[in-house]
Amino acid sequence: MKAEIISIGSEITNGQNLDTNSHWLSRRLAEVGIPVCWHTTVADDLQDNIDVFRVAAQRASLVLATGGLGPTLDDLTREAMAKVAGVELVFHEESFEQIKQMFAKRNRTMPERNRVQALFPAGSEAIPNHCGTAPGIWMKIGDCWLAAMPGVPSEMYAMYQTSVLPKLAELGVARGVRIQRKINCFGAGESAIEEKIPDVIARGHVPEVGITASDATISLRIFALGTSRADAEAQAAPVEKTIRERLGSLVYGVEDEELQDVVHRLLSAKRKTLATAESLTAGLVAHRLGQVPGASAWFRGGIVAYHNEIKTQILGVPRELIEQHGAVSAEVAEAMAVGCRTRLRTDLAVSTTGIAGPGGATADKPVGLVYVGLAWDGGSEAISYSWSGTRLEVQSRTAKLALNRVRLHLLKNG
Amino acid sequence: MKAEIISIGSEITNGQNLDTNSHWLSRRLAEVGIPVCWHTTVADDLQDNIDVFRVAAQRASLVLATGGLGPTLDDLTREAMAKVAGVELVFHEESFEQIKQMFAKRNRTMPERNRVQALFPAGSEAIPNHCGTAPGIWMKIGDCWLAAMPGVPSEMYAMYQTSVLPKLAELGVARGVRIQRKINCFGAGESAIEEKIPDVIARGHVPEVGITASDATISLRIFALGTSRADAEAQAAPVEKTIRERLGSLVYGVEDEELQDVVHRLLSAKRKTLATAESLTAGLVAHRLGQVPGASAWFRGGIVAYHNEIKTQILGVPRELIEQHGAVSAEVAEAMAVGCRTRLRTDLAVSTTGIAGPGGATADKPVGLVYVGLAWDGGSEAISYSWSGTRLEVQSRTAKLALNRVRLHLLKNG
Repeated sequence: MKAEIISIGSEITNGQNLDTNSHWLSRRLAEVGIPVCWHTTVADDLQDNIDVFRVAAQRASLVLATGGLGPTLDDLTREAMAKVAGVELVFHEESFEQIKQMFAKRNRTMPERNRVQALFPAGSEAIPNHCGTAPGIWMKIGDCWLAAMPGVPSEMYAMYQTSVLPKLAELGVARGVRIQRKINCFGAGESAIEEKIPDVIARGHVPEVGITASDATISLRIFALGTSRADAEAQAAPVEKTIRERLGSLVYGVEDEELQDVVHRLLSAKRKTLATAESLTAGLVAHRLGQVPGASAWFRGGIVAYHNEIKTQILGVPRELIEQHGAVSAEVAEAMAVGCRTRLRTDLAVSTTGIAGPGGATADKPVGLVYVGLAWDGGSEAISYSWSGTRLEVQSRTAKLALNRVRLHLLKNG
Repeated sequence: MKAEIISIGSEITNGQNLDTNSHWLSRRLAEVGIPVCWHTTVADDLQDNIDVFRVAAQRASLVLATGGLGPTLDDLTREAMAKVAGVELVFHEESFEQIKQMFAKRNRTMPERNRVQALFPAGSEAIPNHCGTAPGIWMKIGDCWLAAMPGVPSEMYAMYQTSVLPKLAELGVARGVRIQRKINCFGAGESAIEEKIPDVIARGHVPEVGITASDATISLRIFALGTSRADAEAQAAPVEKTIRERLGSLVYGVEDEELQDVVHRLLSAKRKTLATAESLTAGLVAHRLGQVPGASAWFRGGIVAYHNEIKTQILGVPRELIEQHGAVSAEVAEAMAVGCRTRLRTDLAVSTTGIAGPGGATADKPVGLVYVGLAWDGGSEAISYSWSGTRLEVQSRTAKLALNRVRLHLLKNG
């Protein structure tokens, strides 16, 4: 079994649009164990379309095509498939009714040109489209099964899931179910995390585990192939358990969870409030907290203290402390957090200061040097870190470092 | 002239990675008037690679391939091209030296397996790689010119611009130069902007002008094809002039410029300072200002006033004002800006308040209702706006609205 994915449209070959349909379909086929060996994109030219479908029907046993099913003259998929199969286009009454109904539902009259969308290669089957006017086409040419779907991503996704995937299962070509479980970590580099789980991420480990780094967040992905979703999940579960045992509190969440989501959960559960005092990150920590729906229950607010006068006057950082240690120092970070907690009357306050770059570095304080302070009922602390990266990367990673400090504090102080 | 772009790698056909190289190359070829008719992606299989190159060399007169040039066993581009050309692989001493030097520069010893990267199809030419170890391949098979480049985007971009594009110009296949000029607008919707320039964006207008909307920023793109860059720029210039005349201060910048960059320029030129008082946007306005290198010269800081107590205690908004009008009101937005300007001692202060959703709406204050306040030496004001969109969209668009108020104020009050 070898599959090919075809994308049709000059808007892709001329670089106007990025083709994401092929990528999406490749992932879906990988989930059910069907290997994709080719992606082909072709412009809106009839002979080129015919050639591409002919080659695909010969070398692949399954072809999924997207695009070229609209009502205009440059929509050529119907005609190309009929030509390759050596059959005529025939009118399909039922599809025509569905297209008319789709227009009626939107209170619009069907333009005459949409009639061509009810033409199908003889011997093919119409795939209903519940999200748009263009029906899909399902047919066999030689030994190859072909499905033609609309190019509009939302219509294509729905048609694949509702109609094409069940057909693949019926044919028995969809072998098993492949799932992906993502585990998110923060607080150590990629290689430090690798060293804790060399056996798990080794090539040949079943299920396969991949590791990626993005903006200081390290993600582990478990890919499990099972006879069913439950079977695949049962294979992934013990691997996740091992990873969590070895990495401990480095693991902060799964799938699309961000550090602020975890902070939200912990603060809500413990009924504690938080405030922010930011210099380096200039509001980014507050903004990430504010992204979480319901943040106002525990996030009281924050101070962006860019200028030193705001550190002293609003946050109450002693002027001498800044003169003695500099605004970028553990002492000032800690005092910012303490002052912020007092002024904004919260249970916890977190602060940031540092050199974001590109300017501002000194001999002993290079670009990327940052401090994160934390103040709580009965104590305070500051940690330092040195990042490499651009101004935006240093700001973004330090904001994560600050959110992670809050998370670790709440975990430890049950 | 018909061109084909080939992407090589199982990580693309299996859906792990999204292919952006083909899209990038299509745009570059479109700029020089070369039509791309096919994109082909093939997995790491020798016979499939040979077949794909054979088909491409027959149907296209130019083939640009990316990927498959690494040192490992699944890097098959060299071998596939040699097989299609019917020639042997030969060792290229000069490339071997360059690969060794690339490792030496990084203080690493060259692994023995990298030696294969110095093998080339007989009769081909090596394309130097200044950013990585894999040299590219330039050769003619039949009537077709082929360039094979690395799959790593940054290496490929550099190799295309430095070596492949000049070769295309030499061959005389790069016809003219296509440029794109992007003009960014904020403060009106897509259709309102269209109505001011219907003739300019009409189909068939030369040069072509496209319009796109992204997160409330409307961008106009002028695409001009000329015999040279200067000729193309000369065609675009009068269209840009017309657009600027019709749209006035709706145009805020060009290319990748953001509102905060313009605010930075204006504040620096006028030597004025700014502070922020944010409820709804929770630090996002401050964060965008802080993204600009050198922001500390004019950005003193800000207050994230999520809780009403912070609005009253830190910003000095009268408690009665909140009780009378609610925290989401023009009156409170204006008072926040005024209080912020006084407390943080700046020339200007901008504020935001509103209902970000999904919760928090009342009968007369729906999700998406926002107020932006502005205070300056001698005055203050507040405007309101109603957005549709998610929580993050409402926050992001309101942050732009706030930055735009600052921009318009600085423009008017020279």
